Amino acid sequence: MSNMNTAVRDEKVRNTAHRLLEERGVMMEHLVELVLFLQRAYYPDLTPEACEQSIRKVLEKREIQNAIITGIQLDILAEQGKLMEPLQEMLQTDEGLYGIDEILALSIVNVYGSIGFTNYGYIDKTKPGILEKLNDKKLNTETVHTFLDDIVGAIAAAASSRLAHSRFGTK
Amino acid sequence: MSNMNTAVRDEKVRNTAHRLLEERGVMMEHLVELVLFLQRAYYPDLTPEACEQSIRKVLEKREIQNAIITGIQLDILAEQGKLMEPLQEMLQTDEGLYGIDEILALSIVNVYGSIGFTNYGYIDKTKPGILEKLNDKKLNTETVHTFLDDIVGAIAAAASSRLAHSRFGTK
Amino acid sequence: MSNMNTAVRDEKVRNTAHRLLEERGVMMEHLVELVLFLQRAYYPDLTPEACEQSIRKVLEKREIQNAIITGIQLDILAEQGKLMEPLQEMLQTDEGLYGIDEILALSIVNVYGSIGFTNYGYIDKTKPGILEKLNDKKLNTETVHTFLDDIVGAIAAAASSRLAHSRFGTK
Amino acid sequence: MSNMNTAVRDEKVRNTAHRLLEERGVMMEHLVELVLFLQRAYYPDLTPEACEQSIRKVLEKREIQNAIITGIQLDILAEQGKLMEPLQEMLQTDEGLYGIDEILALSIVNVYGSIGFTNYGYIDKTKPGILEKLNDKKLNTETVHTFLDDIVGAIAAAASSRLAHSRFGTK
Repeated sequence: MSNMNTAVRDEKVRNTAHRLLEERGVMMEHLVELVLFLQRAYYPDLTPEACEQSIRKVLEKREIQNAIITGIQLDILAEQGKLMEPLQEMLQTDEGLYGIDEILALSIVNVYGSIGFTNYGYIDKTKPGILEKLNDKKLNTETVHTFLDDIVGAIAAAASSRLAHSRFGTK
Repeated sequence: MSNMNTAVRDEKVRNTAHRLLEERGVMMEHLVELVLFLQRAYYPDLTPEACEQSIRKVLEKREIQNAIITGIQLDILAEQGKLMEPLQEMLQTDEGLYGIDEILALSIVNVYGSIGFTNYGYIDKTKPGILEKLNDKKLNTETVHTFLDDIVGAIAAAASSRLAHSRFGTK
Repeated sequence: MSNMNTAVRDEKVRNTAHRLLEERGVMMEHLVELVLFLQRAYYPDLTPEACEQSIRKVLEKREIQNAIITGIQLDILAEQGKLMEPLQEMLQTDEGLYGIDEILALSIVNVYGSIGFTNYGYIDKTKPGILEKLNDKKLNTETVHTFLDDIVGAIAAAASSRLAHSRFGTK
Repeated sequence: MSNMNTAVRDEKVRNTAHRLLEERGVMMEHLVELVLFLQRAYYPDLTPEACEQSIRKVLEKREIQNAIITGIQLDILAEQGKLMEPLQEMLQTDEGLYGIDEILALSIVNVYGSIGFTNYGYIDKTKPGILEKLNDKKLNTETVHTFLDDIVGAIAAAASSRLAHSRFGTK
């Protein structure tokens, strides 16, 4: 495969991942809010601008873009009723023993090391900000965010780890 | 959710995972061959029956069934051209920077601990038995086994780890 | 290596892991309390006995025993000042960018699949029960629980996942 | 903690990780040889200089330095007979069911995404170059490289993934 084609595909993957997040209702301001929620106790002087910069870096990583696209694609197919059973039902109901969403989320967190696991778990359980909204929408059976809510929590956790790695020495 | 419904779904998930492997051409004898390939050097007296028993136990795990169903569903959708771009193209060509297939595979190996990583990597690179056939089929652009070949290697690696845990103390 | 020796070592590894937890102040009642904390909202009828049984099964896994022994050994060596710098200092202060403790914890959670990640992160952040005590002791610079607190949270998360897998279909 | 102290510790961690690799007999040329071994089939024009640059970037990551220091510290303590039993014996004999070395290795590979798993497993099984020497030394019971050989394979796999991400689109 030529390098030219690779560069074209890289661009497509990046643009698709970013566009899908927006189309599914996840804006930069939501992600910034989550990172501030996770980090403000440790860094009282943390600015929204620093959070945004860290999130942008996270969203530049190909592995993370792959996880975003794959997860949202599965959410969309579940909304359209196009998955085979019982996968269709497990995604539609966010079934408790289906953990592939957490696996994709973990692959996002991993890129910035293990210090993000705790933040991911915490945010996924407490559901602040956009995570609560994504979860509420699930009550509406026509909308499926089984993968998206884990992905969004993982992006925020990864951006928090990145901040810790780049600026500070405390978790 | 009632326990009754859970039992019914467990049964459906199990049956679907097992059926999909067969429909995609992966039989018990292929999996046994891979485990023998991986383990015969360490346990010269290993029988096909012992391999089969270990594989069956691996295939009873819900997490592993979830990975099988999700991965094969994505392969099938790619064959049908029903994924959005550039996911469609990445799966059809088993693109080098798309690593979600390896992530699902790792989630299978993980269930029996870290000692299976090496076996998974080795088998995925050397492509013995059915893995070579699955890979050859990819040359035919109508068949997509991007997830399946990693999943099959991971099942064999997991079954090998299980054998080591249950019977012996050597890697 | 003969099977006999393997059985003897298995027994030693198991006993050492269980003894170390107790010697470091982690009793079965503490672990039961953590599992109840994590699961009571989902299963109001969950009994301490069911929690204990699940924890005992988790503590039977060799991979998990290996992580317990390795982590506590590092804690003890740090208390004795026997590690090289800067590892000594990082463990003594539970430094924020040192994530090997989380990596061992994750290897424990992984054995029961990805659905335990969230519980692990949540408990590690909120520090209920024994986790608060382990963390307080760290203020005393003579005691090091850098690995132990992550390990204890991971055992509770794994036991919770096990309960979910064995009895119910909700996270 | 002040940023100043953090910068000082970062420097110490980096220098210690790099020094330990050399002291344990792993030179840059060995790592370059492993990356060439893994990648030459895919990129016939790959130069040793490009490999070295990729390895240097990998060795700049704090998570990876943490894994190197922790693993080599455990190897050294095992050589000195300073670990508790049965950890001492498991490390001295590189026991088959002890998988914490693979777990640390995987945390290194993970930093550059899942596409490195295969390379890590392959190299760990086939033991080219320095890996064979590290393994031979283990026959000498006075030397322990239980963690080091996995760490070295993981660094080479991570550097290969990094090359793939930065330059090409094929695995």
